[in-house]
Parts: sequence; structure tokens; C-alpha cells
Amino acid sequence: VAATVGIDLGGTKVQAVLVDGDDLVADVRTSTPAGGPEAVVEAIAALLADLGSGAKGVPIGVGAPGVIDPRTGVLHRAPNLPGFDAGVALGPMVAEATGAERVVVANDANVAVVAEHVMGAGRGAADVLGVWVGTGVGGGFVLDGRLRVGPSGLTGEIGHVVVVDGGRRCACGLDGHLEAYAGRAGMEKEARRRYADGEATLLVELAGEGRMKSGIFAKALEAGDRVAEELLEEAVQALGVALSTAATLIDLQRIVVGGGVAEKLGVPYVARIGEATRRRLLVPETGPEVLPAELGDLAGALGAALLVR
Amino acid sequence: VAATVGIDLGGTKVQAVLVDGDDLVADVRTSTPAGGPEAVVEAIAALLADLGSGAKGVPIGVGAPGVIDPRTGVLHRAPNLPGFDAGVALGPMVAEATGAERVVVANDANVAVVAEHVMGAGRGAADVLGVWVGTGVGGGFVLDGRLRVGPSGLTGEIGHVVVVDGGRRCACGLDGHLEAYAGRAGMEKEARRRYADGEATLLVELAGEGRMKSGIFAKALEAGDRVAEELLEEAVQALGVALSTAATLIDLQRIVVGGGVAEKLGVPYVARIGEATRRRLLVPETGPEVLPAELGDLAGALGAALLVR
Repeated sequence: VAATVGIDLGGTKVQAVLVDGDDLVADVRTSTPAGGPEAVVEAIAALLADLGSGAKGVPIGVGAPGVIDPRTGVLHRAPNLPGFDAGVALGPMVAEATGAERVVVANDANVAVVAEHVMGAGRGAADVLGVWVGTGVGGGFVLDGRLRVGPSGLTGEIGHVVVVDGGRRCACGLDGHLEAYAGRAGMEKEARRRYADGEATLLVELAGEGRMKSGIFAKALEAGDRVAEELLEEAVQALGVALSTAATLIDLQRIVVGGGVAEKLGVPYVARIGEATRRRLLVPETGPEVLPAELGDLAGALGAALLVR
Repeated sequence: VAATVGIDLGGTKVQAVLVDGDDLVADVRTSTPAGGPEAVVEAIAALLADLGSGAKGVPIGVGAPGVIDPRTGVLHRAPNLPGFDAGVALGPMVAEATGAERVVVANDANVAVVAEHVMGAGRGAADVLGVWVGTGVGGGFVLDGRLRVGPSGLTGEIGHVVVVDGGRRCACGLDGHLEAYAGRAGMEKEARRRYADGEATLLVELAGEGRMKSGIFAKALEAGDRVAEELLEEAVQALGVALSTAATLIDLQRIVVGGGVAEKLGVPYVARIGEATRRRLLVPETGPEVLPAELGDLAGALGAALLVR
């Protein structure tokens, strides 16, 4: 296997890795520039130089937070990337700026599943659903050993499946989606609503006007905060509904749970999700193992490097 | 393509077809004998003789209402087949009784999707979810042009996904599954519960002590029966939850809805399900077409014949 480069293009940072065989040769990162596609491509070219001479001209995989049209390769729906409002032909731009002969762009949640499948908690399973619980909730499927992208590039958008019909409003505008219950932003919104309704909670006391980070949820839970525990229980059961449905539809044997919230809340959180999943299954004994992701925030860049092989 | 035989082994009848290329050469059926596996295999051998000399020695596909262990081929969980309580090695039994060199046994809901994919409403789509709404609710997936069975043979058990968490008790014993809302038996149970609670409904008046067949639902709906309309609306929305989730997870472009209830209630019913599906999708414009099945009750036997090719 020849060397490849993987780029994880996020809303706040750009992570690059050089992978050769099973070895992570180098990894570098930088802040995501605010200047739009041209500035982002320049930053990627600079990271490539930082990865060293071994990265010169090798194939590049890019994971990006949006939908990649499978026919055109154009990146759409990337609201977290400043200046990417219109569709961006990111692949050709990166190829031109770096001299790479081959550049593949894929959804960031999807490439992270590839990494967990090849070298993380999905090893050895033919089929893997990866679920990333952070500010929102994303996901991706490896089926029969290969990443499924789907005809619209939307496979794995598990944050936007209905878990409570007519329930909490999701950031996407529809009601009752998983992300509204299990995503950090959805939980923050509900915590602030309850606080405004007169319920005391450490969550708002600790966060103040600032962002209610995953670490604040961890602290409030540790202190026995009732609102935090109730929000967590709702999140876990919502994940149980969505994951049990995925497992039943696809006959899945492995689910990997990662992302910022999962990392902060750790193994007990993932174990609760596994229990909430199994208790809704027709045949729990053939149901999936639900395991914590192993690759942390390098998963995206590693998966992009593996995908382009 | 050489000729093949397809058998649809149901709880009340056994349907056999002989298929050659795209042609249905012959089709015969008989009542399902009550004498257990040996009697069923004898009935299959007799049907094979009735199909004519062209059916002699050709490969046989069998669709059966249970779970087929993908490693052993043994049929389990077939409560609708009298005498099949233990696992039954149906394939080898049929091969021995008929002299066929190749016999493949698969789940009946799964093989029906194969038929709709090859020669019915799923034509031309790479991925097809088939949903069969009858007494219960079954289903199956063709993904990338091939039937997905899954490591436990359970792929497509859409009747047993949660649509209302903590909701109506399903025949399987768990709460809130689709089958409890959209299956004929679940709807009958709810109609009788409401009638016993004092609500007048044609459903019970027409059915009396007998089975509340799909035709009775059709008649009550035509007469504007309020309970029938409310049960139907709950069924349609429950199907919308489950189908939108499947479409979102897999990025599906085609869903085929069939089964006894769908056939009785017809095109308007399937159109309502399509609408209930699309309104829950993050990106409705790339969402699936939801179409009525085209092959009626021959789908199972045809699919079994196509699968064994």
C-alpha cells in the first residue's frame, strides 16, 4: 500500500495526516481560515508541506462537513465552513494547489467510520454504523466492508431520523429528530429552556452565557444535577430508538459511538446507549455490539487517508 | 438464463412457479398441509410435478415465513407453519424429495423484494426497500442490486422498529413497534379495544367475532367510519416514521409497498405513506419514490425463482 494523505476539514481546525501502510507517519493541524474556499485550499497546501517530503504528490483524501454530490464531487450544505455557501468543487481546487494526481472528497462523518472500521473499534466487522455525537449527531455506514455513500451522498444522516414523532424541534427545522435530543446543541437549548422556566441546574450556572460544552455536562452529571441527568437519559433513549432501528433494518453487528460528547462522557455513556439499543430489539441476542470509538479526533483525517487508497 | 422454480411457502398456501428467462412458464398452488415439515416437503414435490416436465431437476428457491440462519440454512422462528417449532433443514429435505441439485431457502419477505426489484415496481433502482403490510409487517432490502440477508438473516425486519417509544404493545412483546400500528392484526386489536371502551365502529360490526380482514377496513373507510380513519392515519404516520428513517439512514431512492392491506387499500394508501415519509426527511427532494408493489401475491414465488438463478 502506497502512502496517502488525509485531511479533516472542520469548522474550527484543519487536521492533516500522512499514512503509510498501517503507520501514521506525521500529523499536523491549523486553524480553519475564515477566507472561504481559496484560503482553505491554501491552508491545506501549507499543511501538506508541513507533513514533509513523503507527502509530495501522494493521493489526498479530504473529509468535509457537508454533502458531496456523488456524481459531480461538488461540496454542498457546509454551513460550518465560512464562505462555502455555494457549491465548491473542492477536489479539483486541492489537486491544482498541491499537484496531487488524485483527490477524493467525502463527508467527514463517513470517512471517520472508514477509519474506525480499518483500525479502530470497527475492526473485523463486515458492517459498521458509526455515530458521532457532538454539537450535532452524524454518522456513516460501512456495509460489506465498503463505505456506503448513497446516490445523494446522504447515507448515515442518523441525526435526522425521527425518534419522537412530533417531538422537539431540530436545528434543521423538522420535529423529533435524534439530533434535537442527543446533540450537544439540542441538549443545551433544552437545558436553557428549562432554566428559563424556573428549574435550577448547574448546566446553566456553569456555562453562564457561554457555550455549554460537553465538559460542563460531565461536571453537572458528576455533581448529581437532576436536569443534566434527565437530559442525558432522554438522549440515551433517543439514541436507543435510532440505533435499534438501524440495527433491525440492516441486521448490524457493530455500532461505534464517538464524537465530543461521547469522549467526555466516556465508556458508561456508551454502555447505556448499548443497553437502550438492545432492549428495543426483536432478537437482542443477535443484536450489535455498541462500542466506544477508539481513534478520537484523528478519525476523520485517518479515514480520509484510508478512503483514497 | 436457465429455468428455475420458485416456491412461496405460506401459512395457508404453497405457491409454486416455473420461470424461464423473463417468462412465467407455469404456476400452481395448494393449501399448506398441517402435518409438519415432511408433509410440506411432499406437497412441494407434488407441486413440482404439476409444474410439468420443464421443472424437473432445475434449481429451486424457497421463500419461507421465518428466519434462515445464513451459515447453516436452517429455518427458525416460523410460528405460522404448523409443526415447524424446532429448526428445520428445509433445503436438504426439498433437495432429497425432488432430486433438485440446488435448493436455496430465504425469508419470504426478502425474496418478494427480489421479484419487485427485477420485474416489478423496483425496476431500475440500485437500492430497494420492500415493505409488506399484511397481518404483520415485513420487509427486505436490495442494496447495490443484491438482496441483503445480513449475518443473522434478519435484514429488513421493519415491522419491529420502534415508531412510538413506549407505545402500543407489539405481538412480539415489545412496545411501540411499527407492526402494532400498521399491521392488520395490530389495527384489529386496537379497533376491538376502542369498541370495548364504548366507541361505535363499523369495523367490529362488520367483522363480528370473525377476523377483521383488510376488505372490512376498506369498507369501513369508504363509509366514513371515524375509528377506521383514525387507525389508518396512525398506521400511515407510523409507516412514515419507519420509512423516512430507513430512507435517511441508507439514502434510499425507491420504496415498494405491498401486502394484503396495501392491495385492498390501493394507490391512495401508498400515496399517503409516501407523503408521510417525505415530510419527515432532511432533504425531501432527494427522498425516495414510494410506489405500490406490482406483482401481487406471486411476488414471493417469483422472487424465490429469481434468487436461485
